[in-house]
Amino acid sequence: MKVTLINYTPHPIETAFVAARTCYSADTPSNLWERSAADGEDKISPDRMHSLLDKVINSGHHSVLEHINFTFAIEGISRSCSHQLVRHRIASYSQQSQRYVKVASDAFVTPPTIAANPQAKKIFDDFIASVNRTYQKLLELGIPKEDARFVIPNAAKTNLVMTMNFRELYNVSQIRLCVRAQWEIRELFWKIKSELARHEELRGLADYLAPKCEILGYCPEHKSCGRYPTKEEVLGEK
Amino acid sequence: MKVTLINYTPHPIETAFVAARTCYSADTPSNLWERSAADGEDKISPDRMHSLLDKVINSGHHSVLEHINFTFAIEGISRSCSHQLVRHRIASYSQQSQRYVKVASDAFVTPPTIAANPQAKKIFDDFIASVNRTYQKLLELGIPKEDARFVIPNAAKTNLVMTMNFRELYNVSQIRLCVRAQWEIRELFWKIKSELARHEELRGLADYLAPKCEILGYCPEHKSCGRYPTKEEVLGEK
Amino acid sequence: MKVTLINYTPHPIETAFVAARTCYSADTPSNLWERSAADGEDKISPDRMHSLLDKVINSGHHSVLEHINFTFAIEGISRSCSHQLVRHRIASYSQQSQRYVKVASDAFVTPPTIAANPQAKKIFDDFIASVNRTYQKLLELGIPKEDARFVIPNAAKTNLVMTMNFRELYNVSQIRLCVRAQWEIRELFWKIKSELARHEELRGLADYLAPKCEILGYCPEHKSCGRYPTKEEVLGEK
Amino acid sequence: MKVTLINYTPHPIETAFVAARTCYSADTPSNLWERSAADGEDKISPDRMHSLLDKVINSGHHSVLEHINFTFAIEGISRSCSHQLVRHRIASYSQQSQRYVKVASDAFVTPPTIAANPQAKKIFDDFIASVNRTYQKLLELGIPKEDARFVIPNAAKTNLVMTMNFRELYNVSQIRLCVRAQWEIRELFWKIKSELARHEELRGLADYLAPKCEILGYCPEHKSCGRYPTKEEVLGEK
Repeated sequence: MKVTLINYTPHPIETAFVAARTCYSADTPSNLWERSAADGEDKISPDRMHSLLDKVINSGHHSVLEHINFTFAIEGISRSCSHQLVRHRIASYSQQSQRYVKVASDAFVTPPTIAANPQAKKIFDDFIASVNRTYQKLLELGIPKEDARFVIPNAAKTNLVMTMNFRELYNVSQIRLCVRAQWEIRELFWKIKSELARHEELRGLADYLAPKCEILGYCPEHKSCGRYPTKEEVLGEK
Repeated sequence: MKVTLINYTPHPIETAFVAARTCYSADTPSNLWERSAADGEDKISPDRMHSLLDKVINSGHHSVLEHINFTFAIEGISRSCSHQLVRHRIASYSQQSQRYVKVASDAFVTPPTIAANPQAKKIFDDFIASVNRTYQKLLELGIPKEDARFVIPNAAKTNLVMTMNFRELYNVSQIRLCVRAQWEIRELFWKIKSELARHEELRGLADYLAPKCEILGYCPEHKSCGRYPTKEEVLGEK
Repeated sequence: MKVTLINYTPHPIETAFVAARTCYSADTPSNLWERSAADGEDKISPDRMHSLLDKVINSGHHSVLEHINFTFAIEGISRSCSHQLVRHRIASYSQQSQRYVKVASDAFVTPPTIAANPQAKKIFDDFIASVNRTYQKLLELGIPKEDARFVIPNAAKTNLVMTMNFRELYNVSQIRLCVRAQWEIRELFWKIKSELARHEELRGLADYLAPKCEILGYCPEHKSCGRYPTKEEVLGEK
Repeated sequence: MKVTLINYTPHPIETAFVAARTCYSADTPSNLWERSAADGEDKISPDRMHSLLDKVINSGHHSVLEHINFTFAIEGISRSCSHQLVRHRIASYSQQSQRYVKVASDAFVTPPTIAANPQAKKIFDDFIASVNRTYQKLLELGIPKEDARFVIPNAAKTNLVMTMNFRELYNVSQIRLCVRAQWEIRELFWKIKSELARHEELRGLADYLAPKCEILGYCPEHKSCGRYPTKEEVLGEK
């Protein structure tokens, strides 16, 4: 799996700050923008911008976070994982099509539980080899790619471009960074968080991405993984 | 594949009519509703309601169609098809999970091009048998269902519940009833149209579901399937 | 203000139950539907359905709630209130247009703080009388309704039809039932909750609509209204 | 009214191109991105990128356009106009609040039909003066801003920050650039189109923003403004 942040809203903190200030200020957004993104003697200090953003995020007024967008190149995840990912509907996806692109013979994800079990690994590898033979034979018999792909398993790798705004990324991360999420999509979202953290100006935003227990202060599930106590344990209610 | 309309907004035409009239009338929606859905001497005639709806749809003012919702039980489509389906984001889906539900040994879709080719059919059937053996062996080796499913191919059947409003159904049908759509999702949307038509009070709505060429009066694609001429051919422009 | 639930998904609990079960069951949704909504010897007990729904809501797996839709006739709210309301984007609205419908001379909302202050009340009433005279004079001078309405104040009443699913209603209620919401939209959402509670089969759902502090177990705002302690006070963290 | 494009997705054409190519190519999006946005000997030519985008837009495969986002500072539009604008739900808005920001005495929009009629202009100006006096008196009597604003008319100016992706901008422009749209929101979208055209790298995108008749090749409304013939006139059908 490879995740690359290929593009994002320039001046992201400034953009969210201008949006937040516009709601509560007589000042115009174009003027606020000048004083945020540009340098000048009346420039608003980065600390003040961070501080407002922190208040906004912690008190749950998240709509201003929608003005910050991220575009990721996501490569080599399984079709299982992509099927889960695209269920998050407040985002934009452009995914490699198995109707039009021939599946490569080496493009399959091996789950860690299988990789760690030599017997299972042998069975899995033999199976993938048979997938490749079968797929190839069907194509040779004139079956169109869109139908030959019916033999392609969930393990097949896929690539996609995803654009998601920071509000949604914050929400989805709470679910997908949780240990209850499947290992592959969990790894994907930890990589997304790392990608943000690699960029100096996005590090502050990356810090807000966390499993829901960290955000809420308790685990809302029936049983906790142990990281945080459950809501009932913390609040003493049912 | 089995498609069943299990639920829908009662009095659908009346609901859209009341929404449309509310925009242009001094009358209140609750009063309009009384005169639309209930019987009484000042009942608004069904013909008048149909006529307004027809005008609204043909002139492109579609937001009132969102008040009509349909819930379908969709069963036995392949995971290829469901992956395409859930890409339509303005709808609600609850889909059978391969993480939690064991895949049944007979639950696979055979594409028609394969079914029609005895040699391909034999290869495909042997492959499915090997999928079942492999999946079973992995489970026996203690691999969790969520990882064993990596060998499950696109052909695997899935079930889901989908709720979609009429505006979105109208839009999506234009794309998915077109011959360019893959055969399986095209069949799905023709079945959805049939399901609507089976209900007396929905027949009028079913009639509006059509490939985009019928709606536009021309084919917007580069090449036409022949059903309608292309935009260029009709309008004489590039 | 008058709020009327004019329409909703029939068998709402059953619909959400079938959606939830479809995710975790080898049984088909059409079969689950038969056993939920219809009577029969293998009918699933209402208690079991309620119990699953309760578990789903409390653990935060809310997507199945989207299959339940409600349509409300909302009448006599101010344009201030409607401007706030339509900002909730995951819903469908059909609103009376001031471009096409003449504003009635008696259709204005008086805020309670003004109604309770005789001096302010006199000023407000005189102002509304002048609005009516001005609007009328502009129309007589041939100014079109869409421009004459520039003198119509926020106090003007409006009607609309709103369809919102239960997931969104649950989310929005957390914000709008809170004392921080403006009095008018807060009243609107308490009326929406009451409307649900008036229907026997919706009473269970109405009970879930509550300000966010009740859902979370603490107030997430910087300062609490006193109903619940703040997050910091409960969890002892920043 | 002042419209300023304060921010947008860098390398917009390249971003949409990489998304489009990812669907149909064995190449990875991160590699395609390297060859699109960066300079190098295997750089994909701008002409090829434009040409693919043109094909994508004209044949109606618009999802790749969602990866391009624009953020506008919109200032001095009336609350009538903002009420219409925020009805477009696939966008993000942060709007100046009349609950928290005092309305300035000179911040009102005069519709052109009123400005052009001296008698109407006098009535309108006197009315606005009375609005200011009334609003001020209510505040002095201790009425909170959020209630005093009930006397503020639709003419009041507002500011907002709007982020909209290019797919939605393309769709909304078809409606709002049409002469049927109210003059103010029509002016807003012509200004948005101009703002795009001011930037060298966005000029190509600005060219696609047009009233729906230009896109369709006919006017879909019952009566045409004369710019294009109606669908019936062009296609000879009902």
